[in-house]
Amino acid sequence: MSGPEELKQGLEGVLVAESSLSRIDGDAGELAYRGYAIEDLARQASYEEVIYLLWNGSLPDREELASYTEAMASQRALADGVKRTVARLGAVDEQPMAAMRTIVSTLSAYDPDSDADPHDTAANLRKACRLVAKLPTALAAYSRARAGKDPVEPTEELGHAANFLYMLNGTRPDQVLADTFDMALVLHADHGLNASTFTARVTCSTLADLHSGVTAAVGALSGGLHGGANQDVMEMLKEVDSAEQDPLGWVTDALAEGRRIPGFGHRVYSVPDPRARILSERSKALGEAGEMKWYEMSRTIEEHLSAERALAPNVDFYSASTYYQMGIPIDTYTPIFALARVGGWIAHIFEMLEDNRLIRPRSRYVGPTDREFRPLAER
Amino acid sequence: MSGPEELKQGLEGVLVAESSLSRIDGDAGELAYRGYAIEDLARQASYEEVIYLLWNGSLPDREELASYTEAMASQRALADGVKRTVARLGAVDEQPMAAMRTIVSTLSAYDPDSDADPHDTAANLRKACRLVAKLPTALAAYSRARAGKDPVEPTEELGHAANFLYMLNGTRPDQVLADTFDMALVLHADHGLNASTFTARVTCSTLADLHSGVTAAVGALSGGLHGGANQDVMEMLKEVDSAEQDPLGWVTDALAEGRRIPGFGHRVYSVPDPRARILSERSKALGEAGEMKWYEMSRTIEEHLSAERALAPNVDFYSASTYYQMGIPIDTYTPIFALARVGGWIAHIFEMLEDNRLIRPRSRYVGPTDREFRPLAER
Repeated sequence: MSGPEELKQGLEGVLVAESSLSRIDGDAGELAYRGYAIEDLARQASYEEVIYLLWNGSLPDREELASYTEAMASQRALADGVKRTVARLGAVDEQPMAAMRTIVSTLSAYDPDSDADPHDTAANLRKACRLVAKLPTALAAYSRARAGKDPVEPTEELGHAANFLYMLNGTRPDQVLADTFDMALVLHADHGLNASTFTARVTCSTLADLHSGVTAAVGALSGGLHGGANQDVMEMLKEVDSAEQDPLGWVTDALAEGRRIPGFGHRVYSVPDPRARILSERSKALGEAGEMKWYEMSRTIEEHLSAERALAPNVDFYSASTYYQMGIPIDTYTPIFALARVGGWIAHIFEMLEDNRLIRPRSRYVGPTDREFRPLAER
Repeated sequence: MSGPEELKQGLEGVLVAESSLSRIDGDAGELAYRGYAIEDLARQASYEEVIYLLWNGSLPDREELASYTEAMASQRALADGVKRTVARLGAVDEQPMAAMRTIVSTLSAYDPDSDADPHDTAANLRKACRLVAKLPTALAAYSRARAGKDPVEPTEELGHAANFLYMLNGTRPDQVLADTFDMALVLHADHGLNASTFTARVTCSTLADLHSGVTAAVGALSGGLHGGANQDVMEMLKEVDSAEQDPLGWVTDALAEGRRIPGFGHRVYSVPDPRARILSERSKALGEAGEMKWYEMSRTIEEHLSAERALAPNVDFYSASTYYQMGIPIDTYTPIFALARVGGWIAHIFEMLEDNRLIRPRSRYVGPTDREFRPLAER
């Protein structure tokens, strides 16, 4: 029983929303977006289709998808002012997630609907399309600027996922890379009320605009307790690779030393995260086309933790070796999480605005009372 | 009784934190920061003293305050990159609160401690000082840039409040204006778990950095259900002034038409907000030195709403006529709220980090299940 005076510091178990977006069954290891199994969506639907699904409630038909994809692709280019901001953030070596936060916030200054009423659904959809379309362009340009390279302009000829890899690397990705990245975006698009999604909801419950909600969510995702684990996994795999031990020996020793292994365990899943299973296949396929060590290393660690600690890998565990084999810089993994999740953040904001209420819990005062004030001259 | 499955969409009554910062007694009309009555702090302590109190738990002695004030004043200038961002936001006429959000986010790129561990208390205090010191400089420069004017560099010779007015107007304020603005900052510095403060806490509960928390809070404050009421009050007073009616006639008609009068009622106070009482005196004093109409109009409306609707003014109601008589542009009122509240946001983040827990409530899935996926070719 939960009495009115019980402190819920993490809001554990507190029901704050009803949602028709993600259904997560942590015991069965199932995830569905609006009723569609994540396995089907990941393997057979593009990120654009999934965004359409999350925002509109149903999958688009071919005509709907074509006009949607076209509208979004036409919004990829950045205004000159945003380009200058991106270039400067790269030049001063701002941290990737902080750069993403500043970029999202800056985009509102150039959005033609920035002063629209927060309940203007059509304006919100236009703003949402622009945000999703422009973020990959900005991330690729920032990543290149940081490495001293000029930006690559987006092309409307490629899909959302392929165009990002093209802008990041300056060459068109092959089909395997494009499909893999698209799948990763789909897998990360939404996941219920995680901390960044809740942050977006809290922010917009004041009727703050979409840019405020997404900016806040990027900030929350930058925290070490939320995003970032996929980077930690890859750092660990590189450590294992450079150790003078086989992976099994390394992980055995690491556990004996009490080290926490990143990429395992999840607040929601008690069985393997379905997203991890799908990414594991992709990591393996990339290994078979290149070198198997990153996948095999991951697999050895997974099997050992499963047997010894009954721990299951989460989505971060296999996204690490997948992204690494795709040649994506390690410190870009969390910003890529944001590129994908922006679709879910926006879907949650839209859902909340249909029946909004200011989110304002209570705190209990536990400090001193009735202290006597003495002016500065007497202190 | 609150069962585990009860939906709490606004988290009403849910206790999420214990806090030693603000004690609010809504029935008695009392507010205290760390045990000191707001009346004493507003009338006898500077904003710098109050920030010290909120962040450190006790009021500074003269020596502590001197070194604190000096350290903060030395951080007022902006890096060239920030100046360019501010100038551009003004030039493209970005909305004031969105500009503030982008400015706060941008500041991290130039903060020497931006990659510090989130639990590094000394680094957090340095970052906090820089944020509080630089925000007024950025707001004044943005406000001037928007009006086509060059920025005014900060001076270390003036206190926090006086320096802002100096940078905003280009002339040193007299003592009355400086004291009034300082008092307004003190009155707005903290107020328990309001929506923007909760946003800052949620964001930083992932161990996101201070800039992420404050950026998110500025976004939340920009929402129409949170900040902004002080501007609405002033727009109303100007409407009353230009109407061909006396204020009493205007407000009587407005109520008869079912109009909501901004600046009245508060989720916490059932009696007059103590901050409104203090600001009302200031508004009156400014009127006596200039023209009484703004104060008298406000007073008439207050008396009528009190008698007819048992409604009491909140902090926004008298800050409107106070700021207006000080010559502050109306669309700068909510950004000024942010200039003040940043001290409270940071105090809450510091307090939370001492015993942090990820804030992650639950949602209940209410959408469709087990929908059959048909690939695009079949749709």
